Amino acid sequence: MSDPLGQLWGIGVGPGDPELITVKALNCLRRCPVVAFPAGRNGRPGMAQTIVTPWLNPDQVQVPLWFPYVQDASTLETAWQGAATQIGSYLRQGQDVVFATEGDASFYSTFTYLAQAVQQQQPQVQVHTIPGVCSPLAAAAALGQPLTVQHQRLTILPAMYTLDTLETALDQAEVVVLMKVAAVYPQVWAILQRRELLAQSRVVTHISGHDQVIYDNLDNHPQLSLPYFSLLIVHCGQNHPLG
Amino acid sequence: MSDPLGQLWGIGVGPGDPELITVKALNCLRRCPVVAFPAGRNGRPGMAQTIVTPWLNPDQVQVPLWFPYVQDASTLETAWQGAATQIGSYLRQGQDVVFATEGDASFYSTFTYLAQAVQQQQPQVQVHTIPGVCSPLAAAAALGQPLTVQHQRLTILPAMYTLDTLETALDQAEVVVLMKVAAVYPQVWAILQRRELLAQSRVVTHISGHDQVIYDNLDNHPQLSLPYFSLLIVHCGQNHPLG
Repeated sequence: MSDPLGQLWGIGVGPGDPELITVKALNCLRRCPVVAFPAGRNGRPGMAQTIVTPWLNPDQVQVPLWFPYVQDASTLETAWQGAATQIGSYLRQGQDVVFATEGDASFYSTFTYLAQAVQQQQPQVQVHTIPGVCSPLAAAAALGQPLTVQHQRLTILPAMYTLDTLETALDQAEVVVLMKVAAVYPQVWAILQRRELLAQSRVVTHISGHDQVIYDNLDNHPQLSLPYFSLLIVHCGQNHPLG
Repeated sequence: MSDPLGQLWGIGVGPGDPELITVKALNCLRRCPVVAFPAGRNGRPGMAQTIVTPWLNPDQVQVPLWFPYVQDASTLETAWQGAATQIGSYLRQGQDVVFATEGDASFYSTFTYLAQAVQQQQPQVQVHTIPGVCSPLAAAAALGQPLTVQHQRLTILPAMYTLDTLETALDQAEVVVLMKVAAVYPQVWAILQRRELLAQSRVVTHISGHDQVIYDNLDNHPQLSLPYFSLLIVHCGQNHPLG
């Protein structure tokens, strides 16, 4: 009879402020002998890595996993399978592995694919998820405004929305959040201008981090050079987010 | 010159599991001399109160605030103003007040109205918000399924949606979350059945709590007697949430 397999834990470590990790995620992080996270870029640690590193002790094994920022399905699949193989070796030894991911672990998260690949390779592995604070909620807190109240419908569009999709969302929901708005910002700005929604739209970059920036009067910003994880919140219904 | 006013902190304490509070909210909770929360019902403590009480020390003042579960605007406004007056007396004495709220403090939260009423009564009061884990993310974690991946649009409908609104959301988004589904569950079930979406729909009650219940095959459940805070997640796009 073989040794029992280790278990895989996915923890959302929040949007950037290291204190926005939950107590549950922190306890999991301290308990697991193997700690994995997305590898950084250009020699700099990644955000999840930066958040978790101060909590670790020297006995814990740290495993940076490489995930490419591309759309190509085959390249992505290769990366997920490779990452699953890396942590699979620890799981086979009976060691629990925790994977730390930015924001929440079920919300547009790499953890979804990693967990899927692990379970393809080792179907017996038990997978657990600990939720975290996602960036739209942290952006609302930073703005000092509610994200949603009362009857308001909320639509969240991921990075790959089309401009048609945005128009539909603005028609149907009182509050619209655009994730990773940087690449399409000028086109989005033009739509918001035409709909007279610029005054009710706000951009937050580096959400909750020490380098957070808020743009709250987009009238003055038809062009913005934004980092990848920038987020835009539109309150469509009325002039005031409480309306 | 008068003493400086205390500051008001709104903290989301998560969906129910006491460990799903963030380290930041916990530090704030321990720092503030006055701790407010929604009063319980029927002699039982409320959820936010249950989460925060174990962390408090005997020197901290605990202030339960009464908020009615009604729609009437005048009744609600009276309650918010009354609650603001209660904590306003501490703020005028220069004491910081923290208000603990279930889930996140910007997401369909009583804190929005409390903060607004406090600022109406005392415009100089500084208000801060610390975000928390919201129930849709905790429900996805409990289900062991991603809430959203890749290109999927997410629409969240609050308690007071109409069935027309639901039909539109199901047409437009790949993932739809219905908050507080209990009151309209049979009508929602009929719509999901007609659209052949029952197999991709799940209900979670008492999310993340020790009494959490998951209903993951709604075909068998045309009627369900659900608690108030039950939540329903529909993955409309394909049969598999990863699709």
